[in-house]
Amino acid sequence: MVPVEARIRMAWQASIFGEHLGRGSGIGELMDDLGHALASGGDEILMLGGGQPAHLPEVAQVWQQQIEKMVSQPEQVQHVLSHYEQPIGNTAFRRSIASLLQREYGWSVGPENIAVTAGGQTALFFLFNMLAGSHSDGSHRQVLLPLIPEYIGYANQSVAGEMFRGVRPLIERLGSHQFKYRVDFDAIELDDRVGAICVSRPTNPTGNVLTDQEIRRLHEMAVSVDIPLLVDQAYGAPFPGVVFEPIQPFWDEQMILTLSLSKLGLPGTRTAVVVARPEVIDSIQSVTSIVGLANTNLGQALVQPLLDDGEISRLCQNVIRPFYLQKSQLAQAWIRDSFDDQLPYRIHVSEGAFFLWLWFEGLPIHSQELYERLKRRKVLVVPGHHFFFGLDEDSWQHRSECLRVSFSMPEAIVREGIRILAEEVENAYRAGK
Amino acid sequence: MVPVEARIRMAWQASIFGEHLGRGSGIGELMDDLGHALASGGDEILMLGGGQPAHLPEVAQVWQQQIEKMVSQPEQVQHVLSHYEQPIGNTAFRRSIASLLQREYGWSVGPENIAVTAGGQTALFFLFNMLAGSHSDGSHRQVLLPLIPEYIGYANQSVAGEMFRGVRPLIERLGSHQFKYRVDFDAIELDDRVGAICVSRPTNPTGNVLTDQEIRRLHEMAVSVDIPLLVDQAYGAPFPGVVFEPIQPFWDEQMILTLSLSKLGLPGTRTAVVVARPEVIDSIQSVTSIVGLANTNLGQALVQPLLDDGEISRLCQNVIRPFYLQKSQLAQAWIRDSFDDQLPYRIHVSEGAFFLWLWFEGLPIHSQELYERLKRRKVLVVPGHHFFFGLDEDSWQHRSECLRVSFSMPEAIVREGIRILAEEVENAYRAGK
Repeated sequence: MVPVEARIRMAWQASIFGEHLGRGSGIGELMDDLGHALASGGDEILMLGGGQPAHLPEVAQVWQQQIEKMVSQPEQVQHVLSHYEQPIGNTAFRRSIASLLQREYGWSVGPENIAVTAGGQTALFFLFNMLAGSHSDGSHRQVLLPLIPEYIGYANQSVAGEMFRGVRPLIERLGSHQFKYRVDFDAIELDDRVGAICVSRPTNPTGNVLTDQEIRRLHEMAVSVDIPLLVDQAYGAPFPGVVFEPIQPFWDEQMILTLSLSKLGLPGTRTAVVVARPEVIDSIQSVTSIVGLANTNLGQALVQPLLDDGEISRLCQNVIRPFYLQKSQLAQAWIRDSFDDQLPYRIHVSEGAFFLWLWFEGLPIHSQELYERLKRRKVLVVPGHHFFFGLDEDSWQHRSECLRVSFSMPEAIVREGIRILAEEVENAYRAGK
Repeated sequence: MVPVEARIRMAWQASIFGEHLGRGSGIGELMDDLGHALASGGDEILMLGGGQPAHLPEVAQVWQQQIEKMVSQPEQVQHVLSHYEQPIGNTAFRRSIASLLQREYGWSVGPENIAVTAGGQTALFFLFNMLAGSHSDGSHRQVLLPLIPEYIGYANQSVAGEMFRGVRPLIERLGSHQFKYRVDFDAIELDDRVGAICVSRPTNPTGNVLTDQEIRRLHEMAVSVDIPLLVDQAYGAPFPGVVFEPIQPFWDEQMILTLSLSKLGLPGTRTAVVVARPEVIDSIQSVTSIVGLANTNLGQALVQPLLDDGEISRLCQNVIRPFYLQKSQLAQAWIRDSFDDQLPYRIHVSEGAFFLWLWFEGLPIHSQELYERLKRRKVLVVPGHHFFFGLDEDSWQHRSECLRVSFSMPEAIVREGIRILAEEVENAYRAGK
């Protein structure tokens, strides 16, 4: 039962960097599944695995209109296709992002607090490796993840050695078929080996949204030892805003936020935003220029006009959030319909993002085996154990009892996928294997 | 006289990765200059510094037509903007690249030999760090650069520690105002600390094109110790094909090539291609998924239709190459016109790429000082010392006597820039400081 296979070899001798990053990973497997499902045209495979945003006609129309407008101005096409932008991103775009944050949340930010990166995944790759890992004084620092399970895409991002210190959460059982993770503050040890604290909000994979109170306590901890608190808002505020609970987004110079255009329906443009103190922004600019010269221009160009007139907020509040909220509620209803009520299945309370996080307590098979059985039936999900990393203890049974199911695909796919999932889970419980 | 200032600090304690990549660099300075020149609208600044491709109306028209065609098909827009492609790149695009290489050069390659990355700079960041740096057996490997000066963008790409072993070239003086670098094969030591050999062809910054004979000898050396020979063809074959000498491009499984769409006029799409044995391609796919999930789709979508019908080769041979050849010849003529024939200036033979590489033997000031004097007169160039890295000896005077001048901008800018350059160089020689 090897969660991540070291199955890719380069034939030439790989460095530590090559060994860590070049030999497959959970996120690699996920992207592979996603790519194959896409290549198949989605006809045969029930894709409940990826973070692929849904096709929302009203949103697609906005991007279609924006790109038509762009294409009608050859000078703008010329700018978007044919110019190296500054590594930190387009100045007008950065100004507009800062204005949006000022306007919506009253934050004291300007363009000097904003950097563009090639997607949120890349922003975190830069930030984790800048703040943690080996230091020139011989020390080795870690990123504290105060609530595991956390985003699978972080797990292999260290350029050398284990980087994460995960903390097991408190589990609150709600009724017979729901639960919620809570940060176990008593279990957090902050010593000088911690270089940063990081959470995703909403949490990928669970759809949990840390409460304002939890964020405030984490912020206090970050202040107490003067390390940054990173909050990955790829699914959160201000866009796409897929948060179903009333929260008050927060930023100050102790914090680093990452925002992304992907879940607005623009993952193909690879565009994200970092909000941080100017020194961090300067460092991001430096890393970007060395690693990739500059960012792509298209995403920034398409979104910028919608930032200033408030259209982006309208889209998120009136179209995107209600859509995913309804998708979540439907998927939960289908689970209740498909699963035998006597089975000990539990759904994490769905407070945001595109996923349901399922827990099958006492499941006789490992989540990897469940994933493979489902894959044989052409249902793709993400087995939960990939999201449990940075933990010392191997013995925690819960790690192999969970599954992430996306509800962003069309209803027929999600519904049929859930039906097959219920069959397989029931079979496993019944057969005891 | 500090070539690369460690001037950017993050306030929070940076890791070794953060120190290496996050504190400015020659390439960062260059991109900064480029961005500011761009932001100024190009009105005030004479930009002879970047690798920005020229505005070729015939090429711009091709991309305008391609993007119009794409936009007229909302399904394709949807695919390009809203889908995560496989990390390795779009399958049809990879097939078409492989077919082009088969057709043009007879290479035995298929899509399994092709990976897409977010630009050539990123491809080399991955490859250098996968093949060199720290290994888990405790060894530390280097990338051998058989002919220094080499591309400024490599210099800071190691995630930890010095990575490059540069070799000083032979200098062949040609007439009173030309010269050419040759690989000094006698000076190359291949030991087990070398993990890869790398050259850019044409060489950025010099416009030198390594001869087929030089490539063959480097290939033999790579074979003899079984390490890869990397050839960065960002300006070379098969696109944009800005090579003014008859050469026979070559690839086999001992080699890794990087190609780029940037110099076709698409730098804003950040798209490059790696050609290598399948094991390397698999590793690139793994690294891409971890570092950035996937690539941007736009560049692949715009170029793919031109690969199969041979339009790309026609563009390169009939439009792009002749254009830059003429630009090079004009720029050389303006230098001859502007510089006092008695001054000991030399131009490296211009065999490809977008630059002239100038050598001012015995120049009484450092190239950094010359760069700054020119910048004060609103002429941006790249001082040559940034391109000399991985060398042990600090005493080689030649390192501070060179300058890279781009000839890709409109004639009025290049001509006036060269005129001011000639004045400043003459002043320095005359004043002895």
